Amino acid sequence: MSSIDINCDLGESFGQFIMGNDDAVFPHISSCNIACGFHGGDPLHIENSIKKALKYKVQIGAHPSYPDLAGFGRRKILLSEEELKASVKYQISALMGMVKALGGELKYIKAHGALYNSIAHDEKEANTFLSAVKEINPALAIMGLAGSPFQEITQQSGFRFIREGFLDRRYQDDGSLMPRKEKRAVLESVEASINQFISIAQNGEVETTIGKRIPMKVDSLCIHGDNPLAEEILKAIHQLDQPITVKCIQL
Amino acid sequence: MSSIDINCDLGESFGQFIMGNDDAVFPHISSCNIACGFHGGDPLHIENSIKKALKYKVQIGAHPSYPDLAGFGRRKILLSEEELKASVKYQISALMGMVKALGGELKYIKAHGALYNSIAHDEKEANTFLSAVKEINPALAIMGLAGSPFQEITQQSGFRFIREGFLDRRYQDDGSLMPRKEKRAVLESVEASINQFISIAQNGEVETTIGKRIPMKVDSLCIHGDNPLAEEILKAIHQLDQPITVKCIQL
Amino acid sequence: MSSIDINCDLGESFGQFIMGNDDAVFPHISSCNIACGFHGGDPLHIENSIKKALKYKVQIGAHPSYPDLAGFGRRKILLSEEELKASVKYQISALMGMVKALGGELKYIKAHGALYNSIAHDEKEANTFLSAVKEINPALAIMGLAGSPFQEITQQSGFRFIREGFLDRRYQDDGSLMPRKEKRAVLESVEASINQFISIAQNGEVETTIGKRIPMKVDSLCIHGDNPLAEEILKAIHQLDQPITVKCIQL
Amino acid sequence: MSSIDINCDLGESFGQFIMGNDDAVFPHISSCNIACGFHGGDPLHIENSIKKALKYKVQIGAHPSYPDLAGFGRRKILLSEEELKASVKYQISALMGMVKALGGELKYIKAHGALYNSIAHDEKEANTFLSAVKEINPALAIMGLAGSPFQEITQQSGFRFIREGFLDRRYQDDGSLMPRKEKRAVLESVEASINQFISIAQNGEVETTIGKRIPMKVDSLCIHGDNPLAEEILKAIHQLDQPITVKCIQL
Repeated sequence: MSSIDINCDLGESFGQFIMGNDDAVFPHISSCNIACGFHGGDPLHIENSIKKALKYKVQIGAHPSYPDLAGFGRRKILLSEEELKASVKYQISALMGMVKALGGELKYIKAHGALYNSIAHDEKEANTFLSAVKEINPALAIMGLAGSPFQEITQQSGFRFIREGFLDRRYQDDGSLMPRKEKRAVLESVEASINQFISIAQNGEVETTIGKRIPMKVDSLCIHGDNPLAEEILKAIHQLDQPITVKCIQL
Repeated sequence: MSSIDINCDLGESFGQFIMGNDDAVFPHISSCNIACGFHGGDPLHIENSIKKALKYKVQIGAHPSYPDLAGFGRRKILLSEEELKASVKYQISALMGMVKALGGELKYIKAHGALYNSIAHDEKEANTFLSAVKEINPALAIMGLAGSPFQEITQQSGFRFIREGFLDRRYQDDGSLMPRKEKRAVLESVEASINQFISIAQNGEVETTIGKRIPMKVDSLCIHGDNPLAEEILKAIHQLDQPITVKCIQL
Repeated sequence: MSSIDINCDLGESFGQFIMGNDDAVFPHISSCNIACGFHGGDPLHIENSIKKALKYKVQIGAHPSYPDLAGFGRRKILLSEEELKASVKYQISALMGMVKALGGELKYIKAHGALYNSIAHDEKEANTFLSAVKEINPALAIMGLAGSPFQEITQQSGFRFIREGFLDRRYQDDGSLMPRKEKRAVLESVEASINQFISIAQNGEVETTIGKRIPMKVDSLCIHGDNPLAEEILKAIHQLDQPITVKCIQL
Repeated sequence: MSSIDINCDLGESFGQFIMGNDDAVFPHISSCNIACGFHGGDPLHIENSIKKALKYKVQIGAHPSYPDLAGFGRRKILLSEEELKASVKYQISALMGMVKALGGELKYIKAHGALYNSIAHDEKEANTFLSAVKEINPALAIMGLAGSPFQEITQQSGFRFIREGFLDRRYQDDGSLMPRKEKRAVLESVEASINQFISIAQNGEVETTIGKRIPMKVDSLCIHGDNPLAEEILKAIHQLDQPITVKCIQL
């Protein structure tokens, strides 16, 4: 392994409500998951995010969500299969058209928040999600939780799967993330995130909450834009004296 | 003139809130303007409207609006130029991708409600609207108020313009529509709409509120889906013994 | 038993999206549950509903819901305890102030849709709901599913409980309602609803899906405003030659 | 003049979207205008703001807005008279009930954003606004732009009027504020705001954009919570060696 992708959820601001610090993050990442308007992101913030992605040559993915602005997409919303499918198609279409209109190309899809977590383990919902993507464009890649049941389902469905890990979140022994409501869910220091970066990117393993080391093979590492340390962590990674370069996946 | 298009605004229901009677109208029209989610229309109602349009071979247009579910797009919303442009691009993209995913093709754009009225006369806003459409696809046709300044601006911008008139709305002497808040804004009887259809489609003129006849050259006649007489009017038109057939514009 | 209350969910329209047929129902009921804006009901529709209730001397209850316009409050939304409590307080306050401003008095609270069903059986959520009402006004009565665990919890909390049954919904053997997604969930004919009215109001029992008769002691019977037969059913009840009068609970 | 009120718009966060820095501001102000959910503020953020106001003994006002989350209430929304009136009644009621439930008392109303600006000069809309407040509680005070036509209308309607000025906004020669879209709309330094505080509070005059001094008699000075200098300005004011104390209006 000589390169790794770093991705970030961006374009999530809504009107005057600013989420994250997109400008600080964009110069340092290789892929961005742009909100589609259902958990955050209005048309203008989306448009501006696409422009920045093109400016910094950052690979563009769509970041569809349950329709839940009030809950920022972090709550499970009980949609019927056909509602979920139509919702995902609507969101991907909106982003795809806007990216194309600015001369770019939408390359992959990463579900957001509760939808991400739900399809990671719920096979039926995962298939609904994938059928939506397939109807829009089966050549799109899918980014999802590395090692999850979703990885296998996606690959069996013929999609290219981008295995995702997390730079700034703490892992549990079974490879899942410590839930956000837990105090220690997010790594507290720049150093801890750097160590997690090196551990995953170089050695393909990660240290869990109780200090156990488990395998963690990933293609892309996510950093959260609302992490106040995000910019510092990213800059430190780019200055590491090591053989791994930050580069997007070739899709 | 041997044929005329009849269009209707459809797909405007939102969740459990049902607007209009799409099923009654679809079999009798030649073009449909499908809501894009900003004044009405959620992803599933949009998806189902596209399927019906394809089933009945009804030509499909996108029906973008100001972002205003609470006002059903009938209030002017003061967006900046870049907000309006991004909003229109987002909406057209969403619909375009969903239509394509179902094997259809988006053919034209018709603005909704207050946006329709505003661009009919406001040159600056009209140009913003057109620049949004152009960035998505300059081959899309534009449907708008027949004889309005917008018609000229659109044609000068190189777009195909579909001149629109109204089957069930009362006209004023200057060719504008009697505002919705007026009592007599909507024609009261099936017969009155039929007469207006014949007058416009065969003779290229319309009778105004005070009984004056003014020229009205149109390519398409709109009927409102929330008009309780809509189905009856449409059926009556198809049974008229006259030389004009209902057919969509060749785009 | 010589009188029974008939209640209906009203004021649920949102902007141009009309829900139910309030005008047809108001003259024939004795209590109304007015939407609070979270599943339906905008301020003007709420205001107008209060005015109609006062005009027809219909007792007024608040009808709070999960915050879910897109799902019409019929989906479980995973709120934290403090979110749910604040949401319920906000909604009751809004309605209470508006009723008082028009010279009326808010008398009771009935939860809507998924919230109604959830607190009927989930003790923890029921207590959160009741604590919200208590902070606003402990003298308010609570309307809820007759015979449910919620009935007991509410009464133990010191609230007056209004036991509710349903005029136009089919019951299952355990006293619960046949879920809305089932075909036979709503009684199909005026006659069937009339029979259910007589059976519950006179005999205190109801016939279930498989024809079994189970006890059903209620203080109030709900009719759904979006039931197209609602007006006809209500008129027929008022013309019944029987000893039971339709009257609101004395609170 | 020996004391002056300092007020701030608070409770405007929406779900995960955080607006302003309420915790930094609350300890240093004497009045707070709490959002009512229409431009910002969800029930839980509102509830928590009320609790903080009570904790810091800050006087509580309601801060109703046009219904416009996407525009943060800064766009004029064209409501009918009855829509505006019902909207204002709904918002005040919601806040009033929640304040009372926590043992506090709602004391005054200050309109937000575009509604504030609109009623400052539009007499008809001002009267609609005041009639809404009057129906809820005519003893509520009204906070509004000092010296505006609204001041006179409010006082003639029998309301107590709190004349408001601005600590951190630049004034134009006619006493109006430099519009937000202008570069110099907000004072750039702590020092400039301190000077404006002293000038208005001690001398009853303010320096305009072109250096002219005009009279500015106010009862309350507003500081904006989203001003990154807000905390620093407030602390500096409290440490000023001068005879004016920060204290809420006795209502």
